[in-house]
Amino acid sequence: MVTAEKQISATHQEIIDNYLGLLAEYVKIPSVSAHTEDAYLIEAAEFTARRFREIGGTVEILTDNPRPLVFAEFKAATTVVNPKTILFYNHYDVQAAEPLNLWKHDPFTLVQENDKLIGRGVDDDKGNLIARLTALRLYLSDHGNLPVNIKFLVEGEEEVASEHLESYLAKYADKFANDLVVWESGTKTATGKLELIGGNKGVATFNFTAHSADHDLHSSLAAVVDSATWRLAQAIATLRDADGRVAVAGFYDNIVEPTDRELELVDALDDNTELLRKAYGLELPYLTDLSGRDLNRELLFQPALNIEAFHSGYEGDGVKTILPADAIAKFDVRLVPGMDPHDVVGKIHYHLINHGFGDIAVEFTLGEKGYRSDMSDPMIANIIETAKDVYGNDKLAVAPTSAGTGPMDMFHEHLNAPIVAFGIGYPDTLDHAPNENIRKVDYLQGIDYIYEIISSFR
Amino acid sequence: MVTAEKQISATHQEIIDNYLGLLAEYVKIPSVSAHTEDAYLIEAAEFTARRFREIGGTVEILTDNPRPLVFAEFKAATTVVNPKTILFYNHYDVQAAEPLNLWKHDPFTLVQENDKLIGRGVDDDKGNLIARLTALRLYLSDHGNLPVNIKFLVEGEEEVASEHLESYLAKYADKFANDLVVWESGTKTATGKLELIGGNKGVATFNFTAHSADHDLHSSLAAVVDSATWRLAQAIATLRDADGRVAVAGFYDNIVEPTDRELELVDALDDNTELLRKAYGLELPYLTDLSGRDLNRELLFQPALNIEAFHSGYEGDGVKTILPADAIAKFDVRLVPGMDPHDVVGKIHYHLINHGFGDIAVEFTLGEKGYRSDMSDPMIANIIETAKDVYGNDKLAVAPTSAGTGPMDMFHEHLNAPIVAFGIGYPDTLDHAPNENIRKVDYLQGIDYIYEIISSFR
Repeated sequence: MVTAEKQISATHQEIIDNYLGLLAEYVKIPSVSAHTEDAYLIEAAEFTARRFREIGGTVEILTDNPRPLVFAEFKAATTVVNPKTILFYNHYDVQAAEPLNLWKHDPFTLVQENDKLIGRGVDDDKGNLIARLTALRLYLSDHGNLPVNIKFLVEGEEEVASEHLESYLAKYADKFANDLVVWESGTKTATGKLELIGGNKGVATFNFTAHSADHDLHSSLAAVVDSATWRLAQAIATLRDADGRVAVAGFYDNIVEPTDRELELVDALDDNTELLRKAYGLELPYLTDLSGRDLNRELLFQPALNIEAFHSGYEGDGVKTILPADAIAKFDVRLVPGMDPHDVVGKIHYHLINHGFGDIAVEFTLGEKGYRSDMSDPMIANIIETAKDVYGNDKLAVAPTSAGTGPMDMFHEHLNAPIVAFGIGYPDTLDHAPNENIRKVDYLQGIDYIYEIISSFR
Repeated sequence: MVTAEKQISATHQEIIDNYLGLLAEYVKIPSVSAHTEDAYLIEAAEFTARRFREIGGTVEILTDNPRPLVFAEFKAATTVVNPKTILFYNHYDVQAAEPLNLWKHDPFTLVQENDKLIGRGVDDDKGNLIARLTALRLYLSDHGNLPVNIKFLVEGEEEVASEHLESYLAKYADKFANDLVVWESGTKTATGKLELIGGNKGVATFNFTAHSADHDLHSSLAAVVDSATWRLAQAIATLRDADGRVAVAGFYDNIVEPTDRELELVDALDDNTELLRKAYGLELPYLTDLSGRDLNRELLFQPALNIEAFHSGYEGDGVKTILPADAIAKFDVRLVPGMDPHDVVGKIHYHLINHGFGDIAVEFTLGEKGYRSDMSDPMIANIIETAKDVYGNDKLAVAPTSAGTGPMDMFHEHLNAPIVAFGIGYPDTLDHAPNENIRKVDYLQGIDYIYEIISSFR
């Protein structure tokens, strides 16, 4: 291990410190993609490009849109026969820092406090990229050349739903070609295990709107006039059966069932039941009565229909006797592989019509498919084996998918390589929130891990 | 008719003009009971008291609370054997005038424009009280004494839910004793008929709240965690059956069915179906498929369960993938006689528990019972007969109840007399709204009507 305190060389220490300094400079650039100051995004893109160039990478700044995508390539030594290619996916943009008053320090100044590094982007995603660069630099310093092709795809729109990523992936599929995508970030579990995640769920979001009259009516008319609120509540209630299963015809039809290998991996994960109960104060009937393996299987392999919002009628305190003319509900469905966003929302719309709620308008808003890598793929198997060496055999949480959503399917569709996500976070990293931070020990371990992954191709 | 143009005497004209001047002074006092400037309310109360005193009334200002109640009594001539007593219920407080920018004139200046009188309170309720006073003054001018005892109960809290009225009614029941209560206001229908209303519905208001977790969760947990939003929507949906009837056990149990006389009156009312459709842009399935008599019977004799509001989750634009921890819905039930507010809300709460929704909290907020006068009572029959003379036989809309809610039951419980509501409004009177106005013709006809009611006891 290059960074373990006792055996660290002066050369290695200098490189690590140097890159920590670069991380501080990187954090200082407020490259908030939700803001319109594209100058900071371009500054961050150019900073990123310089980091690749200064250690011998071939760099292209792709400017098909105002927030450029930085692509870098480091070739394996010419002596390597049929070298494999790893593509690291990262991003140089960050979430906004607001609310500023909740930060203990200036969010765009990297602060070291005890064993933590604190600042906007220190985990998501500048810290991850700098850790990966540190490992690459260390490896090149030790060996002079690489046993594997390494590519970096660093976008500037990850925090704004990767608006143009798919068009880049489609257009530059040959350039980005690889044998394994390493995802931008990851975390450790509450029990200190490194998560290695091979997929994510998809999502479909949509709105229902009901409109009953030109304006709100006096509620004395309720004896003869139905309201948007009633209609919407009743329509929503038809979407689930008494057991909480989605009652929409065909909803579960095309689901790709988990393989034995996937079930085996998920069944080896920690029991999350108590964690959920305690972290959120959840009780029956709100928390499922499943637990242990069953809960994890449900969480990772089943789709879910969630109501993000339901708003109708009087918003003030006290009583206002109105019969609301309008009601809106917003939904998301977490999709598992096999489910198509438009198909699912279409089935839900058809369900409404079929149940006498054709007056309710359905608007599709966002969608992406779910994806799970083949966790038996040799490239992923190598990643897992290497992690055992670095983190310990019993310190891994390998899952074929997360419960969350991301654009993995988009990568797979265009680049056709397996994907694995891991990174330097821990449960209190606070991505997107004030006081985003990482533990320095995780950062150094992350550098080790990338170093060993590169070494594994020797 | 005292006010009909052709035969009006100079004396009568002077009295009418004089009282119109007093109405202008009355409107000028911004006696908004929702504001805390009690000085204006006291000024309005004293103004009211002076009006009674100057024409020989015995006046008491009851100051059990900061907004006084003005009580006045005019005795029948001593020669009248067993005189009847009419109690006029009015109020000197008004609604706030905001939004001020929507008024064409200063709201607290009485403006005559074409055939209209415009100003805050010109209908609700200062105009009604001044019309009644004008008639009384005209009668006394013509006859010197009265054939009937007349009492006025003028409160200052009608626009803030008559906060202390019940305690006054209970405490001063003997003082307020009467044979007929004439309610503070009323209107004409869209077809120009004077409404004579003998009752109103009651109301019970309550909230449901669901709380699923300590805070909103990431919606990726929806596969294993139920949300407050789902629970509340599903609980609400159980409250009605497929036909829109309230599905709560016992909800309809104690309803007092309409009498033949009540049905006869309601069946003679105008068909409101097209009016509702056009006024509000209502279509099926929002408007009931009932029409004509059936619609009116449903509107006036049936209770209704309305959702005033449903709020849960993300309030912004676009998508936010949260699983809301909290949801609230606010309801009102319009009650018909026989139904008790607490009993009804108790049954609804019991229904929730019985249907597996015991986790949803139920909070009772407001309640009052419904009331319908006996429309065959001789005092009411006399009011109707007199109206036929003044307005015309086919220009009356006599209903045993309105669809709305008011404190009639409170009067009946303490004073045990029938109640009838009528007044000087028309469909575009805009009570509570900017540009509150009455038609001068309705105002003068209203004076006539009170004059003839007094005369009818000769």
